[in-house]
Amino acid sequence: MDEVNENKFIENLVKNFARSPGQVNSLQESDAELIEIPDSDLVLAITIDSIVEEIETGLYDDPYLIGWMTVMASMSDLAAVGAQPAGILISHTIPVNITNEYLNSLQKGIKDACHECHVYLIGGDTNYSSSLQMSGCGFGFVNSDSLLTRIGCSDGDHLFTTGFFGLGNAYAFTKLIESDKNKTGEISYLPKAKLNEGKLINEYASCCMDTSDGFISTIDQLIRLNNLGFIIEPGIDELIHPDALKLVRFNHLPDWIMLAGPHGEFELLYTIPHHSVNSFISAAGKIKWNPKRLGTVTNEIGLFISKQRTYHRIETDKIRNLYDEVNGNKKKYISQLLIFDNQWP
Amino acid sequence: MDEVNENKFIENLVKNFARSPGQVNSLQESDAELIEIPDSDLVLAITIDSIVEEIETGLYDDPYLIGWMTVMASMSDLAAVGAQPAGILISHTIPVNITNEYLNSLQKGIKDACHECHVYLIGGDTNYSSSLQMSGCGFGFVNSDSLLTRIGCSDGDHLFTTGFFGLGNAYAFTKLIESDKNKTGEISYLPKAKLNEGKLINEYASCCMDTSDGFISTIDQLIRLNNLGFIIEPGIDELIHPDALKLVRFNHLPDWIMLAGPHGEFELLYTIPHHSVNSFISAAGKIKWNPKRLGTVTNEIGLFISKQRTYHRIETDKIRNLYDEVNGNKKKYISQLLIFDNQWP
Repeated sequence: MDEVNENKFIENLVKNFARSPGQVNSLQESDAELIEIPDSDLVLAITIDSIVEEIETGLYDDPYLIGWMTVMASMSDLAAVGAQPAGILISHTIPVNITNEYLNSLQKGIKDACHECHVYLIGGDTNYSSSLQMSGCGFGFVNSDSLLTRIGCSDGDHLFTTGFFGLGNAYAFTKLIESDKNKTGEISYLPKAKLNEGKLINEYASCCMDTSDGFISTIDQLIRLNNLGFIIEPGIDELIHPDALKLVRFNHLPDWIMLAGPHGEFELLYTIPHHSVNSFISAAGKIKWNPKRLGTVTNEIGLFISKQRTYHRIETDKIRNLYDEVNGNKKKYISQLLIFDNQWP
Repeated sequence: MDEVNENKFIENLVKNFARSPGQVNSLQESDAELIEIPDSDLVLAITIDSIVEEIETGLYDDPYLIGWMTVMASMSDLAAVGAQPAGILISHTIPVNITNEYLNSLQKGIKDACHECHVYLIGGDTNYSSSLQMSGCGFGFVNSDSLLTRIGCSDGDHLFTTGFFGLGNAYAFTKLIESDKNKTGEISYLPKAKLNEGKLINEYASCCMDTSDGFISTIDQLIRLNNLGFIIEPGIDELIHPDALKLVRFNHLPDWIMLAGPHGEFELLYTIPHHSVNSFISAAGKIKWNPKRLGTVTNEIGLFISKQRTYHRIETDKIRNLYDEVNGNKKKYISQLLIFDNQWP
């Protein structure tokens, strides 16, 4: 597989840094960092996420959504390690001329997202700058004897998801690409971190990752980290959120591009060992949740879409690098993406 | 006392947010937030600090210093609560056209500061933007039976410092105010978080706060939170770092303005109850450290500078608000500041 630009950049950034002996996970191996707490059965799960490009590109222009996402981005990382969230610190970088109305809406988004996640705002920092930027640092606790990371699946495990994919990319399409006259209507985008599901997944799963960067990036990262492959069994249309499907078809584009874009939907992708599938599904039923099975883990490296017993191999590495390579040119991105259309059944 | 703009803004920002039942400190009461860890004798100390205005104004134009301060700002908060640091997460917001040389120097500053504090880089986030902005989220642990906050001093306690004041303001003066032709030379500014001192202070002190916003702001905040006053006994010149003193005198300005500016030096200001002073000084001697006594805590609210048995009351509230009120106009700031000169002995 090709190297991934983003991974390479991060590896280069920290190549001279020693790892903490108290850190359970290695680089890129976990959605949230996992740190031993001395003399405790708990491990600290902690993560930082900044909302910058989303604001600068106009993808997030609603202050309520910006506040909401500042919380949800890091809460979703905590969900992916099955942690119980304990708090969030938020650093506001705000323009000097910000209106009270804008600031109130931003704070309302933060407050509602905290309420949704049953988490408290613990502290923060405030700075003034020419443009709005937000950073959220979420943290929580997880039992040290049940740690869940992006690594650990085996051949024969079953791949599951907490929900549909593509809503983040559909939202981005309407905001950044679709011209006004062709508008198919607003896409309602206000993702919720899958915290309750994450805690249950933690009890049964062999690995887990959130789809904050979209389905293809997430699968590609899991392939690399586990040195394994994934076979997707349902039809592509069954994976995609109905609103995203409607949008892509109205625009005469193939369904799968909703899986390819880098703006995710914050679902969890996770694997359950074969022998645990029944008990997992039964436990999920008790919290009135019906997990969606996607396929199986295979020893052959790559993403495979199955159709009529034929496996179509998808170049996840090349698709994942594409957004970087077009330097943020959205229309060029779509046209380059379509080069890969023949891979999809 | 007048309300402080910064406090008022933060109180307004979070006025609709509930406090976490697991949070030990109230708003503004502690340099780092203190969170109970379930079934543990430890408390999590956690803090976030962003370096934004310092970069935008040109105050920090050396990438090494920017990296260093990204770590030190939050490590100093941990020092002020006497915590053992456990890690730092850093969110980089970097310009697309950043050079490798610049990035390497930034990372070197981060690495050296981590090494200085015996702390590890745990994780982070990377975003691209038009301008560089950095956020550091430091965390550590402290025993739940010895919590140190900004609150707790009493009449008769002794006020101490870990070192001299004014180096941060002297540095800012050379960077932002002094014209090139009058340059008195570079001020060497690379503050170190007082982590070892903080751990010892934690055993003896009744309250503690770092001087990241300068001496006057720190004293003003301690006055408000404790509803008490402080009498400073040494001469002003004895409080100020020799390099800062040299600078201010070369520029024919009064010594005390090095205490007034908002760019701090990251020393710790703390109070020791009368009965513990001897044992504190003796314990400090064992780690070859000679704490510097500044004066006493008094029931009369305010900052008092003592000279020949006369107490001069300083309007810390008005001095503290001044920087905000001049909208960042540095020369206006100095001229407005000098209006308060008659208060100082």
